[in-house]
Amino acid sequence: MKIHDFEGFPNPARIRIALAEKGITEQVEFVPVDVPNGEHRSDSFLAKNPSAAVPLLELECGTCISECTAITEYIDGQYPGISLTGSTPKQKAVVHMMQRRAEQGVMDAVGNYFHHATPGLGPKIETHQIAVWGEAQKQRAVEGMRYFDSVLEQSDYVAGDDFSMADITLFAGLGFADFSKIEIPADLVNLAAWRQRVASRPSIAA
Amino acid sequence: MKIHDFEGFPNPARIRIALAEKGITEQVEFVPVDVPNGEHRSDSFLAKNPSAAVPLLELECGTCISECTAITEYIDGQYPGISLTGSTPKQKAVVHMMQRRAEQGVMDAVGNYFHHATPGLGPKIETHQIAVWGEAQKQRAVEGMRYFDSVLEQSDYVAGDDFSMADITLFAGLGFADFSKIEIPADLVNLAAWRQRVASRPSIAA
Repeated sequence: MKIHDFEGFPNPARIRIALAEKGITEQVEFVPVDVPNGEHRSDSFLAKNPSAAVPLLELECGTCISECTAITEYIDGQYPGISLTGSTPKQKAVVHMMQRRAEQGVMDAVGNYFHHATPGLGPKIETHQIAVWGEAQKQRAVEGMRYFDSVLEQSDYVAGDDFSMADITLFAGLGFADFSKIEIPADLVNLAAWRQRVASRPSIAA
Repeated sequence: MKIHDFEGFPNPARIRIALAEKGITEQVEFVPVDVPNGEHRSDSFLAKNPSAAVPLLELECGTCISECTAITEYIDGQYPGISLTGSTPKQKAVVHMMQRRAEQGVMDAVGNYFHHATPGLGPKIETHQIAVWGEAQKQRAVEGMRYFDSVLEQSDYVAGDDFSMADITLFAGLGFADFSKIEIPADLVNLAAWRQRVASRPSIAA
């Protein structure tokens, strides 16, 4: 299978961590997409992903899967090893709930701030900025961090006792916050301890 | 199990359709939440769902699940009958991809327009409106409809040959668009035909 992405970007990082957790990074052919120069909006890329975003999973049969949750569902269901999306219906529900909260409340909130209220990827790419919206989303991201700090006071990982895709999303979201110069409040000690714990996993530290 | 919701609202409608598709509506105790008067922001509701939104699934064990995708994952995994989230890893990936596109591109886009660029639920509830953002999201919703029209030119349902939660999301999103007076372009004939087909399902027509 192929992954079309741009190494180092926040959403591509989510899938690279998921692949490493499953131990299948070597089975993937990475195809670079030159996002800073708009290649994700080219006709050839849009034919594969009309959402104009990376990462994109392309299967041998030609089927293309975008959206990190969807790509992770595929990887997790197709390959053995650690479960990233939960095993029982209840676990799956909790993982998907926390995944959505980590996306909306941190990852996407940071992304909206970055793309709308900062120079982002530059004027060629950021053609529809709404600064007031971006600033509000920065606030939302900080509230999201505070929420997850309260969650991590009660449990080791975002969706309970076990590491899951929701942890990956929050971890990548915090990295994006650093990059976007959104300060993570120093009093969020549970979040900081969790972050260190996740950073030391072989899928990330290696 | 309990579902806390407000009957007739767009996201609650998604779960009510999912329950009907699985044939388990009778097993659910519905608990009304007075969203127009802000009950979803009360301390007692926030303790169950810090996201301050309906619908919310409350299991017998006390675990609360918010977010429609997560609730649908639970319902679908726990009960037999039609599969709403896909069976194989590839199907699951496609369903989740289309679910996310239907949420971001139609349901949430319409919601953002409604809550930011119209009176929405009134001044007591709509305390953080950003009109310029809401207007841009209206445009996005119409682009989303156009995208799904092109999808439905190729396949009977949003995620392929089979009805899934992504159809439910798009269907509820179009209902929300009607309610918000966003005009669905008349040339989207595939979307219109699909809408009629979905509306005639017993889970909706009954």
